[in-house]
Amino acid sequence: MITLVSKATIKAGKLEEYKAVVGELAELSRKEEGCISYGLFEDLKDPNILTFIEEWEDDEALKFHNQTEHFIKFGPKIKELREEGSVTNLYKKIV
Amino acid sequence: MITLVSKATIKAGKLEEYKAVVGELAELSRKEEGCISYGLFEDLKDPNILTFIEEWEDDEALKFHNQTEHFIKFGPKIKELREEGSVTNLYKKIV
Repeated sequence: MITLVSKATIKAGKLEEYKAVVGELAELSRKEEGCISYGLFEDLKDPNILTFIEEWEDDEALKFHNQTEHFIKFGPKIKELREEGSVTNLYKKIV
Repeated sequence: MITLVSKATIKAGKLEEYKAVVGELAELSRKEEGCISYGLFEDLKDPNILTFIEEWEDDEALKFHNQTEHFIKFGPKIKELREEGSVTNLYKKIV
């Protein structure tokens, strides 16, 4: 299993648009066979910090996801609405 | 529910000690009533980056955790084995 954590600060005034786009992407992503979970999380202290936490069956499932029509459609929009400096990590569970 | 993500780089030569300490803490933390999940994750590109992802029932459960004997015992050791600049965020799921 691969866990993806992608943390970003959203541009001023773009929060609602960002959530709406992610909502559409999340709905379609969760239907993918290799998707175990897919969520967007709001920081309790700063609502402009929004973090994806996603669980994928394996590397192949994540590669497939990155080539889906919905990811190619919504991915660039998501990037555009984020401030520079977002950070994405891929993890495996060890404990 | 509250999701905690705590990302840190571990000091050189301290990786195995860190994992062992977290292993003990994780085992006891998972037994707490308010703990939904508790894991340590290794970055796929840099094994020195280790991130906790924890799910707690609510704020009270997390406060309780921070006062447990095991957290008070192992918390300072964990901090000592991490490089400066670790980042912890508390989140609520919104999508």
